[in-house]
Amino acid sequence: MKRKYKRLETPRRILLGPGPSNVPEEVSRAMSLPILGHLDPAFLSIMEEVQEMLRAVFMTKNRLTLPVSGTGSAGMEAAFVNIVEPGDSVLVCVNGVFGLRMCDIVERLGGVLHKVEADWGKPIDIQQVRDELGRCDARVVAVVHAETSTGVLQPLEELSDIVHEKGALFIVDTVTSLSGAPLKIDTWNIDVCYSGTQKCLSCPPGLAPITFNDRALDKIARRSTPVRSWYLDMTMVQKYWGADRVYHHTAPINMIYALREALRLILEEGLEARWERHLKNHLALVEGLEELGLQLLVEKPYRIPMLNSVLVPEGVDEAIIRKRLLEEFSIEVGAGLGPLKGKILRIGIMGHSSTKENIEKLLSALKTILS
Amino acid sequence: MKRKYKRLETPRRILLGPGPSNVPEEVSRAMSLPILGHLDPAFLSIMEEVQEMLRAVFMTKNRLTLPVSGTGSAGMEAAFVNIVEPGDSVLVCVNGVFGLRMCDIVERLGGVLHKVEADWGKPIDIQQVRDELGRCDARVVAVVHAETSTGVLQPLEELSDIVHEKGALFIVDTVTSLSGAPLKIDTWNIDVCYSGTQKCLSCPPGLAPITFNDRALDKIARRSTPVRSWYLDMTMVQKYWGADRVYHHTAPINMIYALREALRLILEEGLEARWERHLKNHLALVEGLEELGLQLLVEKPYRIPMLNSVLVPEGVDEAIIRKRLLEEFSIEVGAGLGPLKGKILRIGIMGHSSTKENIEKLLSALKTILS
Repeated sequence: MKRKYKRLETPRRILLGPGPSNVPEEVSRAMSLPILGHLDPAFLSIMEEVQEMLRAVFMTKNRLTLPVSGTGSAGMEAAFVNIVEPGDSVLVCVNGVFGLRMCDIVERLGGVLHKVEADWGKPIDIQQVRDELGRCDARVVAVVHAETSTGVLQPLEELSDIVHEKGALFIVDTVTSLSGAPLKIDTWNIDVCYSGTQKCLSCPPGLAPITFNDRALDKIARRSTPVRSWYLDMTMVQKYWGADRVYHHTAPINMIYALREALRLILEEGLEARWERHLKNHLALVEGLEELGLQLLVEKPYRIPMLNSVLVPEGVDEAIIRKRLLEEFSIEVGAGLGPLKGKILRIGIMGHSSTKENIEKLLSALKTILS
Repeated sequence: MKRKYKRLETPRRILLGPGPSNVPEEVSRAMSLPILGHLDPAFLSIMEEVQEMLRAVFMTKNRLTLPVSGTGSAGMEAAFVNIVEPGDSVLVCVNGVFGLRMCDIVERLGGVLHKVEADWGKPIDIQQVRDELGRCDARVVAVVHAETSTGVLQPLEELSDIVHEKGALFIVDTVTSLSGAPLKIDTWNIDVCYSGTQKCLSCPPGLAPITFNDRALDKIARRSTPVRSWYLDMTMVQKYWGADRVYHHTAPINMIYALREALRLILEEGLEARWERHLKNHLALVEGLEELGLQLLVEKPYRIPMLNSVLVPEGVDEAIIRKRLLEEFSIEVGAGLGPLKGKILRIGIMGHSSTKENIEKLLSALKTILS
């Protein structure tokens, strides 16, 4: 009894959740361009361009800058699996889902875990990091720049100084912030940084841009144990992305086409103009939400402009809001996670989704639903 | 000084190398369909369909059957990282690059490695596996079904019996064989099997279909140490792909669209008809190659129909053949690897690339170049 499948069609959504964001027409077009072999000279020059453009978007000169062949979480794993050896002390800042995920990964790698925690919705207290670094011998400190689960944007510059005073390496998760808010890898002295494609880059999920500076490469070179993952071993991956072109694994060709086009559009807009657009649209969204009587979870100075966690009014079932937004208005927003489940809605206005028009549609839909 | 990038265009190639293969129009179309959120009900039903169709293509009833969010090598790592614990004895059959890769992964995981080796271009001798299993206490035996680096197709049924007589688990790499040659997971009693999308499935690279049977799940459930990879931990991944829909990592949405369409086309053609097509085209290719005076590396009974390793005639520089094929005819074929570098050309006629027309074009081009 064979089941017959129809040709795939998908509904058109306005994606205003925690990611993925909507994809520009030119990026979609790129995905369906003719496929090339992963060693074809024409593909190798696309790889060159992608690396060059990624360096521009990360604001870094780091040679080892490339997209990992997996989603943002593979980027997180790639950062830790290359840097952390069994027995290494690692200090993780935890104030949401992605900090917890870092802890989980560190423990699987046999690292000795230290934590500085803050309530979900609050930033990490830098003094606590300083104190903990005085007590423990952490060789690595990790933090999430934009905690997608709560909407908190963590200031990085002072934290980076504290980490480097102690001679530790600084790993930063910028999955939700890259190209949506100011981020300067070299100026801010970030040693390892990874992101994802499906947030402010507005490319479909499937790749994780990552960058390592020389201090990070030096730590990798001095490892006394092999990197535990073959797939994510950067010493091997870089031989394919570097001048040697040694086959490691087959690159996700068409995803790399898409990333190439997404990066091109970002550089055409200009990084500063893009940060400005995200901020302006965030302020317009907040103003509109406040007019509807809605409040944000996070205090003003620590809000991620691209990911707004909105407190659900007393007595309102947030699941019904999300369901109605999706079914009646074809708008997706996100739910709260962990301790914030049922308490917040997560509204993302990232990359191509961050438009005045989308914000107006959302506010008008919310007005209808809440009235 | 800002560099200006042009809109991406890519040349149209006839891909007759070791993968990727050409992509059908309908699969390309699917990649550029509107993106959905990874928890959108419309996407969840696409996931259901993909799992259902993957089971049909793997010829299995295994519940845990899904695409890993990475390329074929991520599938290999997912198989071993979930099954192998530090100290576990693992017997790997090695007669090419991908057997060696398995060894590398087993050692990174702290497994105790045993090997049965054969010359590159020869199949594994089953008697040697039987003997080695009598000497060592391997709990896992791993083999590559279609060794893409050499063109050898390994018979699996008798090997599977030997492995299970000893109570070991059988892991099989079918990156190059799935849907191109007979493969019956349940009938042949294969415990863990992974593949890649860019070979006979004719979907761009970026996903690794994988399947685990109950014996394999039982081994995972009885682990005394956590799976060393967070990203590839199947106990967590399956909660997202299963009924719970617990967020793990963002699925590569548009890649999954593409796989869905690729699988649909395969099931429309029918598995047996597809195996037949690959075999028929292989025989036509071999006949044509022999008319040109070219010989295959592998003996007749062990040839992969979809990946033909052709001996380079004495005094001919294979790099020039590949360069001329690509530049003058826009045809890609592959080079030899490791000890076969410079000695063979690898001609893949996989999935959508496996057509009478492509074979004729290749033979005619080779005739021009070699004359």
